[in-house]
Amino acid sequence: MRVHSLISDYLHEIMTDSSSSEGGTVADYIPELKKMDPNLLGIALCTLNGHLYSTGDDTAPFTIQSMSKPFVYAAALKEHGLDKVLDVVDVEPSGEAFNELSLDDETGRPLNPMINAGAIAVNQLILGEEAAVEDRIAHIRDFFSRLAGRELEINQRVADSEIEHADRNLSLAHMLRSYEVIQDSAHDAVRGYIEQCSIEVTVRDLAVMAATLAGGGTQPVTGERILSPAVARQVQAVMASAGMYDAAGRWMTTVGIPAKSGVSGGMLGTMPGQLGLATFSPPLDKKGNSVAGARIFQNLSQDMGLHLMSTEPYGIQTVRSIRTARNYTVVRLQGYINFAAAERFVSRIGEAKIKTKSFVLELARVSGVNGVGRRMMLEELRRIRNSGVEVWIFDPENVLPDPDLGDGTYPRKQSRRAAFALLDDLRRSASTPTE
Amino acid sequence: MRVHSLISDYLHEIMTDSSSSEGGTVADYIPELKKMDPNLLGIALCTLNGHLYSTGDDTAPFTIQSMSKPFVYAAALKEHGLDKVLDVVDVEPSGEAFNELSLDDETGRPLNPMINAGAIAVNQLILGEEAAVEDRIAHIRDFFSRLAGRELEINQRVADSEIEHADRNLSLAHMLRSYEVIQDSAHDAVRGYIEQCSIEVTVRDLAVMAATLAGGGTQPVTGERILSPAVARQVQAVMASAGMYDAAGRWMTTVGIPAKSGVSGGMLGTMPGQLGLATFSPPLDKKGNSVAGARIFQNLSQDMGLHLMSTEPYGIQTVRSIRTARNYTVVRLQGYINFAAAERFVSRIGEAKIKTKSFVLELARVSGVNGVGRRMMLEELRRIRNSGVEVWIFDPENVLPDPDLGDGTYPRKQSRRAAFALLDDLRRSASTPTE
Amino acid sequence: MRVHSLISDYLHEIMTDSSSSEGGTVADYIPELKKMDPNLLGIALCTLNGHLYSTGDDTAPFTIQSMSKPFVYAAALKEHGLDKVLDVVDVEPSGEAFNELSLDDETGRPLNPMINAGAIAVNQLILGEEAAVEDRIAHIRDFFSRLAGRELEINQRVADSEIEHADRNLSLAHMLRSYEVIQDSAHDAVRGYIEQCSIEVTVRDLAVMAATLAGGGTQPVTGERILSPAVARQVQAVMASAGMYDAAGRWMTTVGIPAKSGVSGGMLGTMPGQLGLATFSPPLDKKGNSVAGARIFQNLSQDMGLHLMSTEPYGIQTVRSIRTARNYTVVRLQGYINFAAAERFVSRIGEAKIKTKSFVLELARVSGVNGVGRRMMLEELRRIRNSGVEVWIFDPENVLPDPDLGDGTYPRKQSRRAAFALLDDLRRSASTPTE
Amino acid sequence: MRVHSLISDYLHEIMTDSSSSEGGTVADYIPELKKMDPNLLGIALCTLNGHLYSTGDDTAPFTIQSMSKPFVYAAALKEHGLDKVLDVVDVEPSGEAFNELSLDDETGRPLNPMINAGAIAVNQLILGEEAAVEDRIAHIRDFFSRLAGRELEINQRVADSEIEHADRNLSLAHMLRSYEVIQDSAHDAVRGYIEQCSIEVTVRDLAVMAATLAGGGTQPVTGERILSPAVARQVQAVMASAGMYDAAGRWMTTVGIPAKSGVSGGMLGTMPGQLGLATFSPPLDKKGNSVAGARIFQNLSQDMGLHLMSTEPYGIQTVRSIRTARNYTVVRLQGYINFAAAERFVSRIGEAKIKTKSFVLELARVSGVNGVGRRMMLEELRRIRNSGVEVWIFDPENVLPDPDLGDGTYPRKQSRRAAFALLDDLRRSASTPTE
Repeated sequence: MRVHSLISDYLHEIMTDSSSSEGGTVADYIPELKKMDPNLLGIALCTLNGHLYSTGDDTAPFTIQSMSKPFVYAAALKEHGLDKVLDVVDVEPSGEAFNELSLDDETGRPLNPMINAGAIAVNQLILGEEAAVEDRIAHIRDFFSRLAGRELEINQRVADSEIEHADRNLSLAHMLRSYEVIQDSAHDAVRGYIEQCSIEVTVRDLAVMAATLAGGGTQPVTGERILSPAVARQVQAVMASAGMYDAAGRWMTTVGIPAKSGVSGGMLGTMPGQLGLATFSPPLDKKGNSVAGARIFQNLSQDMGLHLMSTEPYGIQTVRSIRTARNYTVVRLQGYINFAAAERFVSRIGEAKIKTKSFVLELARVSGVNGVGRRMMLEELRRIRNSGVEVWIFDPENVLPDPDLGDGTYPRKQSRRAAFALLDDLRRSASTPTE
Repeated sequence: MRVHSLISDYLHEIMTDSSSSEGGTVADYIPELKKMDPNLLGIALCTLNGHLYSTGDDTAPFTIQSMSKPFVYAAALKEHGLDKVLDVVDVEPSGEAFNELSLDDETGRPLNPMINAGAIAVNQLILGEEAAVEDRIAHIRDFFSRLAGRELEINQRVADSEIEHADRNLSLAHMLRSYEVIQDSAHDAVRGYIEQCSIEVTVRDLAVMAATLAGGGTQPVTGERILSPAVARQVQAVMASAGMYDAAGRWMTTVGIPAKSGVSGGMLGTMPGQLGLATFSPPLDKKGNSVAGARIFQNLSQDMGLHLMSTEPYGIQTVRSIRTARNYTVVRLQGYINFAAAERFVSRIGEAKIKTKSFVLELARVSGVNGVGRRMMLEELRRIRNSGVEVWIFDPENVLPDPDLGDGTYPRKQSRRAAFALLDDLRRSASTPTE
Repeated sequence: MRVHSLISDYLHEIMTDSSSSEGGTVADYIPELKKMDPNLLGIALCTLNGHLYSTGDDTAPFTIQSMSKPFVYAAALKEHGLDKVLDVVDVEPSGEAFNELSLDDETGRPLNPMINAGAIAVNQLILGEEAAVEDRIAHIRDFFSRLAGRELEINQRVADSEIEHADRNLSLAHMLRSYEVIQDSAHDAVRGYIEQCSIEVTVRDLAVMAATLAGGGTQPVTGERILSPAVARQVQAVMASAGMYDAAGRWMTTVGIPAKSGVSGGMLGTMPGQLGLATFSPPLDKKGNSVAGARIFQNLSQDMGLHLMSTEPYGIQTVRSIRTARNYTVVRLQGYINFAAAERFVSRIGEAKIKTKSFVLELARVSGVNGVGRRMMLEELRRIRNSGVEVWIFDPENVLPDPDLGDGTYPRKQSRRAAFALLDDLRRSASTPTE
Repeated sequence: MRVHSLISDYLHEIMTDSSSSEGGTVADYIPELKKMDPNLLGIALCTLNGHLYSTGDDTAPFTIQSMSKPFVYAAALKEHGLDKVLDVVDVEPSGEAFNELSLDDETGRPLNPMINAGAIAVNQLILGEEAAVEDRIAHIRDFFSRLAGRELEINQRVADSEIEHADRNLSLAHMLRSYEVIQDSAHDAVRGYIEQCSIEVTVRDLAVMAATLAGGGTQPVTGERILSPAVARQVQAVMASAGMYDAAGRWMTTVGIPAKSGVSGGMLGTMPGQLGLATFSPPLDKKGNSVAGARIFQNLSQDMGLHLMSTEPYGIQTVRSIRTARNYTVVRLQGYINFAAAERFVSRIGEAKIKTKSFVLELARVSGVNGVGRRMMLEELRRIRNSGVEVWIFDPENVLPDPDLGDGTYPRKQSRRAAFALLDDLRRSASTPTE
């Protein structure tokens, strides 16, 4: 489908820009992770209406590792409610590395569910204290599968290898036991956590899982309502303040996307109400984040205006109408054209299939266009023209100045008078308004 | 105007719910602050299109105190650019109280501009190192006045009183000097900072100032473009991670509004792309935040869906059309009806003035309605009916179930057939679509 | 023997003063410790020449617990030398509780051998990495037995009970493994450490073991040279700075005795070059130190001038001579009479057995007398008189003013002239000068 | 005097060993300190009986700087008593650099009097809150002069230069004011502290001042009783735990001498009950301690057995008797011969002036000899022989094996029989026993 290749091309471009000579090293603390090909690189993006775009090594499997933390936290919130879970794990940033203790001195409560101590404690909440490890893991694997929309499997080789090198996590588990935060044996608690980390995903899976959070709990592809909006909100809020360990302030200012990374080289992010993102590139920086992943997130944030603090207003009813009359297809847009809006436009055009001689893009009600929105609109116009259709734009407010189609040519400009005549025609035509 | 009283009534209700027996004590470290009336209580809210709603003691003046920090940070970013300012003050949360040192051990760079040490360093950037205190303060007062849209004054009694009890800040200033982070004398640096804190505002001023950040730098009332979107974004990102000192994680999860408070009892918040908020109530909790203010922010967040992680999609083109035909005024809404959308609806109805016998609210394209949106729509319908107009709703998707107008009565339901006939009429009428 | 009863009486008095209504609670984290009788109370003191004094429950056995740490540290220093041991465990105070991690961030090296993490690492040094737990423990038990001068046994019930509640220590051991500070399995490392802690001792054993350190490594009763002076010095230096966990400064100023306590309620201390001390009373304060023990140490420090910073000069040649002539026994003392000196005096008198009609104590060369010295001398004189001997003192410098023998009576004063005549006689007598 | 040259030669040797290519840089934060000649190097040592030995640049004046802290602390304890002073400044080690805040979070009480914050607070105690800076300083200068035994002056150029660069201290003073720990203006408080630091001393002064602490408060040269033993003990205990800032544990193990250094390059130390030490060499390590000074302290500790944890018993009655008979001078020693004992021996021989043909050193009652004791005794014997006297030793226990006088020759050995005959003679002679 055209929209896919257009947005995938865009992602490919971002990926290429971000990946050149990044440095970093593949996690080497266990043999199985060390084996990963450092050259693998993939990006995926999933909108709330379930459009999934990806590029690069988007079907390469890797273990979910710490990116499992927000989702098991979500499962625990769903199972026990916020208050019970808060009794066990707090939501404060630790300003420390992922494998630090960061427990409350008196209660032993881990500072947040994104550090290992917190994640081990959260894992133990699943199915209650008395549950067997196998049942807990089966439940989590099933839950993750529903989030991803396909059956996920555990990479048992990675899990076994991790268990052999689990001293740090065993240390955390014993400490949690000493505070009576967990009841299970340290070994079982760590095994449960490690198996949760060993579920195998692709960037496409992660993007869909992230989009489920971004959309308030509804899996955007299957449409299944998996989490309540309150749970989705809580998980994303904790990712925003504690997901990237230390340097939380720098991440918030320069990227502004609630995110979580894993030592396998994956990284996922959510823009609440907009979309889910994921990247995969094994080489890590010293803090254990994927080097290329962090760069891609930063570039996407800047280029696409994906930032929690973005002040660009956005609307989901971008395409006001698509009507045809007298050999014209007229598409009227409205609102602010950012990535989500442009994606909507390109996606709708693809569905509509233009069979008329001419195509008119009406921008009179568009309040603004950001960088990625402009690029996507122009690219789409170029493709329409290349398919043999004459392309016009009606842009009385000049929101799309200098509309070079990428090859030095321009769409034709519709005069105000001709535009109104055309719109008058359309108003009388029988075609139903869309959306 | 009706919309004002409706939303102001809503704010009043929130205020009343939040203020009962809150506890807390008025700041007493300087005599002038101690004099404040603990019973003062006000709320204001400003949308990006410049609608300003307020209730309670909304014209009571108080000194801006620490709430000056984000705005002087904005002024410094505007004057020097991000890199230069980052050289002087970092953007990491400190997890400490506002008056802690929180300097980098080696460079002396304050951890962020929201703690006093950072704010003193940022103040010194205004007009450059060589500037006189008087010029710096004149510049800041002018800048704040533009943000508020009216001439603001310095409360010199408070400033003088603060300077007499400024040991903590003088300590910080000397420490900054020892690291050569600032060059000015400690006394002058602190005086500059204290005068900046002594600029007098009301909750209405603060809401407008906050809305200027939320809207990407454009003052929503005067329309003046004061800051770039990049600066507005940076300031709000730092407020999000460092604005509420410690307990940043709890604030992010339960409130989710980038915010800043002051010892005078004020608190301001921004929802990027949506609105600015402010409250005023002098009694403070132990951390120095207004007790009632924090409660009101939490209630507004929950009730209005104002939360960075809110997954409610929202559109600014709420009112699809207002048309009249055959004694009917038909208002067609679209998108998700949250507070911002409902405010748009109520505001437009107020402007339109209904003179027909009947009023039809068409909800066929509404994707959802949250709590505050529902309350505002029903209240508006009740008012219309009370003005003698017959009220109908056409709600084929049942997005507004059980539309009790607050007195046990309901609007009339439009049948599908009658609705389409009416719409067909409208389609042929000459009235121009709106918005 | 008289001296024993005299000094033991003194200890008994100190004990009685210290024990009334002290508060505290017996360690309850494992059942076996919880069983201890809270009313047990004992004190023991051992001089460098092997005199051992004790009072109260001085034969009640209890597990050595953390008081094993200095001795296993000594064993490791003896086996591997200082540099090798320093590579594994540092010597800095942690300012933290005994069960905190306190590891160097980069190397994982524990801060000192007195915290559990350090002690576990030190335990692993005994007999080298490859040793079996059983061999290590057998070695340590043998080593402790040589220090105590009798065969010590492990209380296996306590050991087994501790192993069941060893999460905190297992956490530390896994963390040490993760840094590769230790190689053994976490379970074995902790078992080795717990068995070392479960060796059963009495206060008398501990006093002798402490005196071995105080005397530079020579067991004062058996005379066996067990440690080098350099090792004894190192161990006591680390006890001085890190033995009492936090509050190191307060302990150094008010008590000034290098010390170590255990959760069983024991406490041991050393005065380098002077003596070893031990107390036993199960109720603990919140930091895990014996309440009565800490009080007794403080009282002994004040009363006996036992303090590292004591500026009282002391000499070991206290008793210059004991000679008999013409029905007189004349004892000449010299130097400063503190506890150690008085003990020497009382001890020598007991050996000498006075058969003459009169006893003369010559104090002309005594430079000073502290509180405990005065009490012990007067008490000894009272006993001599009560045995039917006439008691005189010659004190030209008045170093023992108002020598009330405790019952309102005084020894007779020797005049200068009579004294010199007597001394002249003695000079001509054949009795050999002593010491 | 001979003893002086002997011990001074020893110090000179230690100095030469310690000073070669040490590295370090002269303090450069104020111009006046930067001017100091980096090649200056001096050592001084003062015994409790007032013998003062020194070598190198022992009359070069330098400002006392942080070495004033223990003495002003002593003055405050003397003036107000321990409890009052503890209310203001605690005695816990800070583990931080000297210029860190290290205040109790709630009370603002500095952690100890050896960090700047604590020293500023202690300075303010002198003569009470209401005192004028001038009076306080006059009092301190007078007090220091009594400790040194000569009139000391303030180096006003250094003081003025420091005041110009006092931001760090002004920061501390304002912080102390904010907690109401001090009442004076920050400027006056810092000036008082800086003037106290600008009192000019030599290593000889410092050694005497330190010996006053070591001796329990009695100035060993003038004999003035300046402090109580309790105050002297408290000051030394705090130096032991907090005097060397961080690395307290390393200092305690490797040096074991309570010590204090200053940025001028001075360092002083005390051995309670034994002596005071001081060094001077301006180049500092990164922590602000004199590089050569720290090395010299370590060498003296090792070579002279000066260590708090030294288990060498020592006695002050080293010289049991000096008697002459039949052309023999017989010196009988007893106890353990460490530095203090050997110094006593050399010193007494020098006073005694040997006029007989032969000199006999009787070692029958000597329990042991350490390295420096051996070197000093042999050197003294060599000098006696070089003055034309025949030298014999009687050493039945062989405590001085292989008594090479430094040139391959040996003293003659007295046989047991000859020795007893001689002693018998002496016993009958009229010469009075000494000491």
